[in-house]
Amino acid sequence: MKKNISVGLLGLGTVGTGVFQLIEKHQEELVHKLGCGVSIKSILVCDLEKAREVAVNPTYLTTNPEDVINHPEIDVIIEVMGGIDETRQHILKALKARKHVVTANKDLMALHGTELQKAAYQNGCDLFYEASVAGGIPIVRGIADGLVSDRIQKVMGIVNGTTNYILTKMDDERVSYQDALKEAQELGFAEADPTADVGGLDAARKMAILARLAFSTSVDLEDVEVCGIENVALKDLQLGKQLGLTMKLVGFTHFQDGQVEVSVEPTFLSNVHPLASVKNENNAVYVNGEAVGETMFYGPGAGGLPTATAIMSDVVAVIKNMLLDISGRQFIPPRFEKVLKTPDQRGGNYYFRLHVEDKVDTFTSISAIFNHLAIGIERILQTPGDEIVVVTHEATLEKVRNVITRLQEADVVKDVKSYFRIEGVVRK
Amino acid sequence: MKKNISVGLLGLGTVGTGVFQLIEKHQEELVHKLGCGVSIKSILVCDLEKAREVAVNPTYLTTNPEDVINHPEIDVIIEVMGGIDETRQHILKALKARKHVVTANKDLMALHGTELQKAAYQNGCDLFYEASVAGGIPIVRGIADGLVSDRIQKVMGIVNGTTNYILTKMDDERVSYQDALKEAQELGFAEADPTADVGGLDAARKMAILARLAFSTSVDLEDVEVCGIENVALKDLQLGKQLGLTMKLVGFTHFQDGQVEVSVEPTFLSNVHPLASVKNENNAVYVNGEAVGETMFYGPGAGGLPTATAIMSDVVAVIKNMLLDISGRQFIPPRFEKVLKTPDQRGGNYYFRLHVEDKVDTFTSISAIFNHLAIGIERILQTPGDEIVVVTHEATLEKVRNVITRLQEADVVKDVKSYFRIEGVVRK
Repeated sequence: MKKNISVGLLGLGTVGTGVFQLIEKHQEELVHKLGCGVSIKSILVCDLEKAREVAVNPTYLTTNPEDVINHPEIDVIIEVMGGIDETRQHILKALKARKHVVTANKDLMALHGTELQKAAYQNGCDLFYEASVAGGIPIVRGIADGLVSDRIQKVMGIVNGTTNYILTKMDDERVSYQDALKEAQELGFAEADPTADVGGLDAARKMAILARLAFSTSVDLEDVEVCGIENVALKDLQLGKQLGLTMKLVGFTHFQDGQVEVSVEPTFLSNVHPLASVKNENNAVYVNGEAVGETMFYGPGAGGLPTATAIMSDVVAVIKNMLLDISGRQFIPPRFEKVLKTPDQRGGNYYFRLHVEDKVDTFTSISAIFNHLAIGIERILQTPGDEIVVVTHEATLEKVRNVITRLQEADVVKDVKSYFRIEGVVRK
Repeated sequence: MKKNISVGLLGLGTVGTGVFQLIEKHQEELVHKLGCGVSIKSILVCDLEKAREVAVNPTYLTTNPEDVINHPEIDVIIEVMGGIDETRQHILKALKARKHVVTANKDLMALHGTELQKAAYQNGCDLFYEASVAGGIPIVRGIADGLVSDRIQKVMGIVNGTTNYILTKMDDERVSYQDALKEAQELGFAEADPTADVGGLDAARKMAILARLAFSTSVDLEDVEVCGIENVALKDLQLGKQLGLTMKLVGFTHFQDGQVEVSVEPTFLSNVHPLASVKNENNAVYVNGEAVGETMFYGPGAGGLPTATAIMSDVVAVIKNMLLDISGRQFIPPRFEKVLKTPDQRGGNYYFRLHVEDKVDTFTSISAIFNHLAIGIERILQTPGDEIVVVTHEATLEKVRNVITRLQEADVVKDVKSYFRIEGVVRK
């Protein structure tokens, strides 16, 4: 049996540093659980001279990826450099050189996950990606192993810490989106350019990966319908509170009769839904399985050490497979052809906020528009500033789109201020 | 490669029936993920003639355990009969006959887990027990694999659905313990004899298993300090609510400097703690790791199909190991000798409710008693009926026990009505 396994790092940023620290500090745990040690032999960096938080043997640093990928002693490549095209090339090269790969790269896995997994399989290598979804939460393993025998029907995720932080601030402290974003940026929870987070793209990448895994079908990033939180008004959050609802940026994927839908959008959750109490920068993934029912996995969605924990769980799995001589056998091709649901097959309960003419028959006129499209109304309430809120029973997305057109055309409606899906309402 | 793996069931109650249903209904998923089918060949039951929910081939039923254990075609024994001594014998026999074992039996694993795991290892067999803790929640895997590289510091669990249901009812509907218990019994969430649940023994068994796994030390059931919920008063829950605290029966285990503590007791959780929002009969396990930080695994803690999901995740793991020819290699002996913390090494924030003499200097006298033992007070508040509540800063259990003695002796105190540990208060 090998006494030591050598690994190489592509990247030494926040997550790479976390991996370095875990390997240094938790060596005893690794030896106890694996029967052998783990050591880093080579690290790809941009700048050899940069000051670092950790004490790295300078001879291990390189700016040439080949030094890591083709290092004769290295068996496992840990990719924590981010990026897509160049990184994809590195990983393909590493797999061809029969190196196992552990990646934290959601952008890459969302776009090229299937290709990379096939390449790993063809080369007899493992390619694991636990850290690419929801940081320190072991959700990939939870779905792939823990719920392996079940039929998963729905996965909902709060998988972006920045937006959850912003929405929590807005909700708890009654501040506007702009003020909450500014605070998040000051505290380091949001990037200087927050577009990928607040626009929902980051969450969409993770949901594409989760949908693929949960439903064994080949979901692509462009199949995810995305809406960000940029236009969420404080007023909606406050009205939601009156209705027992909490606003979250929810990644939603559902599989039924061989058809799949994946979306990321600001969603009202019933306060009793397990995801509703997930606050600040935390992440959580809710999984509903036919047999198991409702489960949820909660934890830190980012950060150097939490993400490194997920990476190291993959490294341990890779090394166990190496020691047992069973590497590269985990690939299971998708079971189902991808068929996307159409708007008349999607839907849910909905919340609408409408700016209306303050007339005696406003309620009647509005109700009539919904009734005309056979959308059941659960309640209508008046709010200050000539606005009314309508909460509907389940309606298809097609009907929802139609009703919005009709509302916009109606004399009594000045403007459709907002509308959001509602999830987690207990059906009686 | 085998085209089919045969398994045997010991028991066909609620959980056994769930396993039967999953194997029948989810055969396609199993074939897709394993490359081979799974079929049940023999089932131990008490009564051959009993009417059953599922259509079982009557020739597979037997009242003789040897028929299952020594069945020549069966490779995996699924133990869902419960019980301890006789069941232990069955499992030991099965392991000697080189059958892999999957068990849902927390009583047995809490008492004899280490012995059974060693026996499995010695016979080159797998023995898995995911279903023995928190039903459908994949917590054993979450700790063993997901957080494998981390140093776990604390595990807290709501691991008994009956008590969580009762406490939720008391809290939400302001009913007494007795009324809530009665309702739980009527709805099937509590047994006719609820002692093991409400007294905390059931939770203690699960916490012993979790502590062993999380800290790699040999915790025994008798090491768990147990207090049930029988004496929790509605008044305490209501006072807790005013203080931002929610009462739960919390299994608590902590590992520090090589020393471990394990307890099950009614505990006040800060409302912001992830466990505080776990309601009704649901379970959740909170894991705090040095690197990952706070994580939580939430889901159904009982029920035929959810528990069967956990069992089948083990069966799939066993079969994968068989197919890869790596069975019986998962046993890792405990890394640390067991050293239990003493009462001066344990502690936390505490809540006391005292029945007092209504005098001018009552607050002063009470404060003095706490001050005398160097227990910091966070707040004191008066409540109706000549009662006061004291919330302390962190104090050792030894000091807490001392202060209770002093309070009981004090003239100003008529009675120490209750005291509870508080967890999850954010330290500023």
